[in-house]
Amino acid sequence: MSRTLKLTLAYDGTAYVGWQRQAEGVSIQGLLEEALARFDGTPVAVHGAGRTDAGVHALGQVASARVATVHDPAVIRRALNAMLPGDVRVLSVEEAPENFHARYSAAGKRYEYRIWQGPVQPPFVRTWSWHLPHQLDIEAMGRAARALEGTHDFSAFQSAGGGVVSAVRTVTRARVERRVLPPGVTGGGADADGGEAGGYLVSVQLEANGFLRHMVRAVVGTLVEIGGGRRSGASVPQLLESHDRGASGPTAPAHGLVLVRVDYPAAAR
Amino acid sequence: MSRTLKLTLAYDGTAYVGWQRQAEGVSIQGLLEEALARFDGTPVAVHGAGRTDAGVHALGQVASARVATVHDPAVIRRALNAMLPGDVRVLSVEEAPENFHARYSAAGKRYEYRIWQGPVQPPFVRTWSWHLPHQLDIEAMGRAARALEGTHDFSAFQSAGGGVVSAVRTVTRARVERRVLPPGVTGGGADADGGEAGGYLVSVQLEANGFLRHMVRAVVGTLVEIGGGRRSGASVPQLLESHDRGASGPTAPAHGLVLVRVDYPAAAR
Repeated sequence: MSRTLKLTLAYDGTAYVGWQRQAEGVSIQGLLEEALARFDGTPVAVHGAGRTDAGVHALGQVASARVATVHDPAVIRRALNAMLPGDVRVLSVEEAPENFHARYSAAGKRYEYRIWQGPVQPPFVRTWSWHLPHQLDIEAMGRAARALEGTHDFSAFQSAGGGVVSAVRTVTRARVERRVLPPGVTGGGADADGGEAGGYLVSVQLEANGFLRHMVRAVVGTLVEIGGGRRSGASVPQLLESHDRGASGPTAPAHGLVLVRVDYPAAAR
Repeated sequence: MSRTLKLTLAYDGTAYVGWQRQAEGVSIQGLLEEALARFDGTPVAVHGAGRTDAGVHALGQVASARVATVHDPAVIRRALNAMLPGDVRVLSVEEAPENFHARYSAAGKRYEYRIWQGPVQPPFVRTWSWHLPHQLDIEAMGRAARALEGTHDFSAFQSAGGGVVSAVRTVTRARVERRVLPPGVTGGGADADGGEAGGYLVSVQLEANGFLRHMVRAVVGTLVEIGGGRRSGASVPQLLESHDRGASGPTAPAHGLVLVRVDYPAAAR
């Protein structure tokens, strides 16, 4: 008599040890399992599509769970949001095929990494963007990012400990864009002393059929070296061929990263 | 040998007791005075244009201070930002006429109040918007807001304890607008179950030559009653004439309010 649910979640990861349950600290998975168990009256296991690290955010994380409740999805969503803290929100609850699994059924994911480029980082973007005061060559970063598109062995952008058999992934989209935010988010009089205090958001977007451990953050660390002129954009193909994590850039900080959405084949939905 | 500086500030007020120094807790004024005193090597008094309450934010608060330092404004700004926490930022530092006073020289201020209208409030707007799940008639709120424009006695929208001689103020602009945020702020898959989990921001904007204690929040509490059909929009002129705080709506919560900017006559700048 059990059903499978697909839950779409948004969270501000600042206060959490990440998606996955840990020995210490509060995880998103743990919060969700406790809330669902309270609603269902029995322990519930929740599987997430992406195991976001400590401090990483989500706008469209997907989780699956088998539950006994016969309540409507909209009722379950309201009940969960009433139990969860305000920085973790269930955006939607849907019925899913019995064998739907948020992680194994996923066909692809989209991550975005946000950089605040400018001398002063506005207070309201500080929790979800990496502050880089120096100028970046966004065109050069965009060209370098495109070289990642396609099917490659991404060992050069993988941290140890991921526990995967193969580092081959297919990146379907890699873009670097300047993004304009409404002044209500960034602050009004920001350019009072000749525009120097102004700035803008640089958005790095990666879509792939799967991601390795710290892959987006290693890509961003490398692209930032390219954007700052400390590394040639033309070096990306050799980097990929090197299979050497030591050859690529540093891992960018977690708080700039957000899991934007997870895609499933039509049959799994 | 002292100079007068004009500082433009943005802050996330969540963690603070408000602009003004209090017996207990951390204030923005206190943080700024301590940072300036460390830089100047002598105690510095800082005056703010608006005494924002606990939890109220700023995108363009203005403060004035007399300092002894001979450093460039840009150097002072960098030094202050290096000492202040990330949720309080100095956007600009400018030289000002000797008698410039952030509060007494101000000709007007603009406040914005943000309401998140929708069943689920996205995590990244939760610290700076009031969550109202029920539908609001924005047109009716806008018409009622316009009735506040002009010179009136605003006693019906003033909390006790403001200590002012007269409650007469001139509201030069009052607007209620629906605002669209980029999906990167609100979340992507928000309308996966038929749009029910979607929502939008309602922005209430007030510009006046001066504001009374809790004035914007009392106006918003009243407008929300009008938007929800619990009060007639046509009642605003009578409300103003009543001079009775008990006749208007409740005080909206502090965390939806932001001081957007402060205007000065050309001679003071």
